[in-house]
Amino acid sequence: MSAAEFDLIARIRARAATRGDVVLGIGDDAALLQPPPGRQLAVATDTLNRGVHFGDDAAAADIGWKALAVNLSDLAAMGAEPAWCTLSLSLPDEGGESRQTFVDGFLDGFLELAAQHRVALVGGDTTRGPLSVCVTVIGFVEPGWALRRDAAQVGDEIWVTGTLGDAAAALALAGVAPYCDHEVRNNSGDAQTDAARLFERLHRPTPRVVAGRALRGLARAGIDISDGLLADLGHVCAASNVGACIEAGQLPTSHALAAARDGDSRRVLQLTGGDDYELCFTVAPRQRASVLQALSASGTLVQMIGHIEAQPGVRVRLPDGSAWTPPRNGYQHFG
Amino acid sequence: MSAAEFDLIARIRARAATRGDVVLGIGDDAALLQPPPGRQLAVATDTLNRGVHFGDDAAAADIGWKALAVNLSDLAAMGAEPAWCTLSLSLPDEGGESRQTFVDGFLDGFLELAAQHRVALVGGDTTRGPLSVCVTVIGFVEPGWALRRDAAQVGDEIWVTGTLGDAAAALALAGVAPYCDHEVRNNSGDAQTDAARLFERLHRPTPRVVAGRALRGLARAGIDISDGLLADLGHVCAASNVGACIEAGQLPTSHALAAARDGDSRRVLQLTGGDDYELCFTVAPRQRASVLQALSASGTLVQMIGHIEAQPGVRVRLPDGSAWTPPRNGYQHFG
Repeated sequence: MSAAEFDLIARIRARAATRGDVVLGIGDDAALLQPPPGRQLAVATDTLNRGVHFGDDAAAADIGWKALAVNLSDLAAMGAEPAWCTLSLSLPDEGGESRQTFVDGFLDGFLELAAQHRVALVGGDTTRGPLSVCVTVIGFVEPGWALRRDAAQVGDEIWVTGTLGDAAAALALAGVAPYCDHEVRNNSGDAQTDAARLFERLHRPTPRVVAGRALRGLARAGIDISDGLLADLGHVCAASNVGACIEAGQLPTSHALAAARDGDSRRVLQLTGGDDYELCFTVAPRQRASVLQALSASGTLVQMIGHIEAQPGVRVRLPDGSAWTPPRNGYQHFG
Repeated sequence: MSAAEFDLIARIRARAATRGDVVLGIGDDAALLQPPPGRQLAVATDTLNRGVHFGDDAAAADIGWKALAVNLSDLAAMGAEPAWCTLSLSLPDEGGESRQTFVDGFLDGFLELAAQHRVALVGGDTTRGPLSVCVTVIGFVEPGWALRRDAAQVGDEIWVTGTLGDAAAALALAGVAPYCDHEVRNNSGDAQTDAARLFERLHRPTPRVVAGRALRGLARAGIDISDGLLADLGHVCAASNVGACIEAGQLPTSHALAAARDGDSRRVLQLTGGDDYELCFTVAPRQRASVLQALSASGTLVQMIGHIEAQPGVRVRLPDGSAWTPPRNGYQHFG
């Protein structure tokens, strides 16, 4: 470890908040943590790479926010309460000052979101390499209460939080293929504000931790929408050995997206666009009232969008009852 | 997630062993794990990047082994018992077949070491990007028994496991600066075997997990030697607010290194070369017998190399009593 790396770690350490259950945080070979009795741990890890998950011009604070958000979203999808995280930062061998500026900005976003969820950054490493961020989060969940992918049952209702397609619409506005295939409408009097809202959704997704906690023990299966609704719901169906039918007319739509797109162009974004980080979950009809009450108390908008069926695969039904076939199933990590 | 990524994850999942305390492993948004009662968690994370931590021609199995080894070494340095790990793999967007071949080879090394330590691979992600491996390990340690960096006391003896300088000698043989500054002797009748032994130490380090477990509750402070003895012992001294004096004549030396280097050239490798992943720990003199007995039972070679002193900084004393100043302090992560 050079003086430069030592400085970086000292900078991170000075800003990272702690918690009572962190016995030993940043600065040793490993962090020491005291898990609460009677709980299981939920552990998720996700990497963001420059040029793949964010562009060359991405703001450091947005990268920091999103690197933690996508991981918290995984815990949310399990109904887990986040507690601790580690951060592994690969940074290009540029000047020390530009590295420090980047890390300071990165921490602005990362630690802002961490503070919102009382997550302590307890360790990690910094190393030389192409810009890349690997975050691991650890949370707690009551035994038997986690929302698993393999628990959907025929007859379950399918619900989603928030609105769908906003992040994909921002990618379309930014000219990222394939989302820019369709023309963007510009008939709103407030197109610039709408675009800003869509980009906010792309760069600063809200991990649905509160909703996920409200759903534990009530919803049956759950997943977060990172690769697109059809793809992610497809994982639930495959793991649960069931199928699904989505009502295209029920997809929750933001004002900003409604102003920018309609018809098929909008449906593609909402059904196959990734990066929304909303939750998709299934509910036994008899639990509907309890779920709505719990989510209402948490202040989360939700919408029922379809049902779990016995026939494998995920189908989409248009309001006129006809079937709709998407041009693709979701974000492709490899070509 | 594309079909290609799904295939990769299925390949990894099919080969990963599990443990009784893994409630839910690879394949959901997060892993669910049951920690044992009455223990603290030790968590470490480390990234290896191509071109920084391994070369373009590194064997996939060696990369897999080392990515886990450097993390297990961090747990060893805390005296923790490893249990679970996650793996985040960034892979270049090459053909699917070459990606599969790499992942298969990578898992050969990674899972061989995981099996040796009964570590379960419980989750992670695969993504597109320059070749990079981020591993997070979680282990257990009894409250109060961890070997921390900040616990060294004046008068403690300084000990190390195994031999020092082997990995740096391999880097020198490979022509990696600055280790290749000095001429390599070739007066051994068995130079090729010696070189192979040195490369084995570089590519397949042995994480000192068994020794670390034997030391918990007995040694005072501990660290693993990843950046070089002077640098890493320097971290212990800084954290403990003490200094150290190393006896250069006491540094444990492998036959292979002794055949390749001597004098100043060897000392540079042993004192400033990284990548050995041996443990350096401090022991109160009254605990010496207990420590030696515990380590002997674990089959680990150890050597006393110096003492903790009140004067800050790390000094090196030659056998004739004179002081030795190194040309540099250890591996530099940033230039």
